[in-house]
Amino acid sequence: MDAAEFRRRGKEMVDLIADYLENIEQRPVYPDVEPGYLRSLIPEEAPEEPDTYEDVVKDIERVIMPGVTHWHSPYFYAYFPTANSFPAMLADMLSGAIGCIGFSWAASPACTELETVMMDWLGKMLKLPEDFIAGTHGQGGGVIQGTASEATLVALLAARSRAVRMILASDPQRPETGITSKLVAYSSDQAHCSVERAGMIAGVRMKKIPTEQSDKYAVQGETLRRMIQEDKAAGLIPFYFCATLGTTPSCAFDHITELGPICNAEKIWMHIDAAYAGSSFICPEFRPLLNGIEFADSFNFNPHKWLLVNFDCSTMWVRKRSDLIGAFKMDPLYLKHDHQESGRYFYTDNSLFRSLKMWFVFRMYGLKGLQDYIRKHVELAKEFESLVRADQRFEISADVVLGLVCFRLKGSNEVNETLLKRINNGRKIHLVPCQLSGQFVLRFAVCARTTESRHIREAWRLITQLAEEVMQDVTKLKVRM
Amino acid sequence: MDAAEFRRRGKEMVDLIADYLENIEQRPVYPDVEPGYLRSLIPEEAPEEPDTYEDVVKDIERVIMPGVTHWHSPYFYAYFPTANSFPAMLADMLSGAIGCIGFSWAASPACTELETVMMDWLGKMLKLPEDFIAGTHGQGGGVIQGTASEATLVALLAARSRAVRMILASDPQRPETGITSKLVAYSSDQAHCSVERAGMIAGVRMKKIPTEQSDKYAVQGETLRRMIQEDKAAGLIPFYFCATLGTTPSCAFDHITELGPICNAEKIWMHIDAAYAGSSFICPEFRPLLNGIEFADSFNFNPHKWLLVNFDCSTMWVRKRSDLIGAFKMDPLYLKHDHQESGRYFYTDNSLFRSLKMWFVFRMYGLKGLQDYIRKHVELAKEFESLVRADQRFEISADVVLGLVCFRLKGSNEVNETLLKRINNGRKIHLVPCQLSGQFVLRFAVCARTTESRHIREAWRLITQLAEEVMQDVTKLKVRM
Repeated sequence: MDAAEFRRRGKEMVDLIADYLENIEQRPVYPDVEPGYLRSLIPEEAPEEPDTYEDVVKDIERVIMPGVTHWHSPYFYAYFPTANSFPAMLADMLSGAIGCIGFSWAASPACTELETVMMDWLGKMLKLPEDFIAGTHGQGGGVIQGTASEATLVALLAARSRAVRMILASDPQRPETGITSKLVAYSSDQAHCSVERAGMIAGVRMKKIPTEQSDKYAVQGETLRRMIQEDKAAGLIPFYFCATLGTTPSCAFDHITELGPICNAEKIWMHIDAAYAGSSFICPEFRPLLNGIEFADSFNFNPHKWLLVNFDCSTMWVRKRSDLIGAFKMDPLYLKHDHQESGRYFYTDNSLFRSLKMWFVFRMYGLKGLQDYIRKHVELAKEFESLVRADQRFEISADVVLGLVCFRLKGSNEVNETLLKRINNGRKIHLVPCQLSGQFVLRFAVCARTTESRHIREAWRLITQLAEEVMQDVTKLKVRM
Repeated sequence: MDAAEFRRRGKEMVDLIADYLENIEQRPVYPDVEPGYLRSLIPEEAPEEPDTYEDVVKDIERVIMPGVTHWHSPYFYAYFPTANSFPAMLADMLSGAIGCIGFSWAASPACTELETVMMDWLGKMLKLPEDFIAGTHGQGGGVIQGTASEATLVALLAARSRAVRMILASDPQRPETGITSKLVAYSSDQAHCSVERAGMIAGVRMKKIPTEQSDKYAVQGETLRRMIQEDKAAGLIPFYFCATLGTTPSCAFDHITELGPICNAEKIWMHIDAAYAGSSFICPEFRPLLNGIEFADSFNFNPHKWLLVNFDCSTMWVRKRSDLIGAFKMDPLYLKHDHQESGRYFYTDNSLFRSLKMWFVFRMYGLKGLQDYIRKHVELAKEFESLVRADQRFEISADVVLGLVCFRLKGSNEVNETLLKRINNGRKIHLVPCQLSGQFVLRFAVCARTTESRHIREAWRLITQLAEEVMQDVTKLKVRM
């Protein structure tokens, strides 16, 4: 395929994409296929000679679409949102064509530089403390990671490296091996599973801090303080705490204004994971949720979740860039260049030109447009919450702060599991569950860019209709017994 | 921007991309900017109100292009290639629109399934042993990672986990903490810097095995065997060896037919990193370079380097999927689904629909088209090698096996450094150096899809012209002294 054919096929693809997204709500949101469905639909080996482009395009509907979970359907309420916007898609097209790999400044200066400046733009939108803004002289700054899981791990590794340095500085005779096995990290029992995995990867203890429904699933300062004291008494070295703002199960918020000073006093690296909730902090009314950021060493959230920047774009800020650079620095000759020591750039990851998406989105929406978008989703969640609260058969399981509503039928876990199964088998709307204090809870997350009030009301109509059926079946079963 | 406007802007972007790639060789391949150039060209904050799309597009030439290193210019000979093809770009557009996050089978079955089948297609193109093919009943199979660095790390972590399991199985009383500090991994001193970094991340010793020019920079079995014996005698536990096929400095190949049996006998996980060279193994004439794969536990290469599949697409195969799953498994309720135990799918990473790119590229080129592409690059490298060999002032520094030519002026490192600096400052062609046995060497890698014989000859004309100037300057300097 040459450039001339690409002009033609590319334009057809633009129309195919626009058609797909304009008509997405007519598709079943969750696919009706069994594991292994796809293998039988295509050959077992790649063709020797080229297929025609027409055949490839035909197979999108025949092979791919039947197995797609349509994340951008306005009837998709599972997990958390993943972003999808036209400006981001345009930027990604350009990024793919430029196709530079940004592993150093010299490998493509524009790639590295736009990333630094876009991270400053976004940091200012969030009103981050000055320490996290690179500017022209700052010691801190931002870097794009692929996922929040990656950011958590990178922060943990930088913290481990800093802890080992500090220990060796205070006791130069101490052997370096063996220090890691004494290190202990903490996170909420509500934290994303990737936090635990980060501990496994880094080979350090990762302790889960218990939370309570009565505390709205937030880590309490007293609990953290007690665990630190116990661990120190046992000869361990606390070095890292991952706070969560907006947990995956219920969008709970750790009290970082209380937890931060404890970490600072104990020289524990505090990382804040706000993967989903972080986008909302661009609105003044939600910014107080980030208060306490001034105590953090690093902070991360995913514009690729809720800020209209397509995957992947997980933004991470650190107070001291040198902590990151120090933890990962490698400098073989093939990566050296004349501006090696300019010191402003610290990318530890290969990437395409991910900052282009941020630039396109921020400019095409403007800060106001982005704020409007966040507010609309929160409003839709509140609307769903009101519908649930108005129905005596249901209960709300956690405070609705942003775009997530945790709810359940008053009754057993089995009844709620059955309800969820019927909802998803209906394939008209899609939800996933969570567990809160031993209860099976349904999560309703406002996800798609195109979700409107009518979709929320239709979703509720379906849920209540299925709930009615489930409860009738339960009654029948009881009568029979 | 709505779908209607996207139809218009998307088509304009397709033309912009086609224009860019059709005329890329007229741009200076390496940008003439100083660090910090970009910050002054754009505002310090995101706009409150949206900018116009026209302004955004205008800024591509004003702000971005002056700072781009044009990796797809036929005059780009630095690092290793990164792929860029029209079918892959079309697939990426579609992938961006579908925008599903493939962290489990249920999160988008088509995403997971096409990935498994495409990895089988590619594995068969490479004639991998049956053990690495998932099929419908295999225990092994492939998974797409972001980069070879990631694959090296994932393999190392799976190996660490397997080693700890084996040690605990043979000595259940042994405390788990402390095992990691006894583990020792190995790789060539020619291995990519990310291998060393993987060791740092996993918190294990990573020993570099010395190589010699006389052995063509390949790790020798005898050396590995000796290091293993010494380490075992010192109470350490050898557990991982990362072999490299096609090293970054000089495209050297470790002798895995000799090294593999040593690893197998010692229960050491052998991972093979063939990031660049792997693509060539689809050609029968280069497939012997992969002989010995039958001894490996895992194998990785980057179709996003040399197989026309745009970044990111780093393909990794393991002999036993359970080794990977076991090392990373997390199963919170929000990721559970009805087909949890079907066991065929083992993705440990978030990703977009990366397999779509493989599908489009394999079908639009066909195996023959892909083989032709590899062969053409190797031929161009051989052509460049002949030009160098025909000039008495130059020498070839390492065997030319694939698309990389390592060469230098006969003379001091300083003279070669000066030559390289002038080459890159000329901005017509771009190369990076490497160090081989203490010598400063120029690397000439055939990179772009559109590189032709005329570009190679023009590059050589420029290099010899600058070499002439450098040598005259050296002579003048000597006369003056």
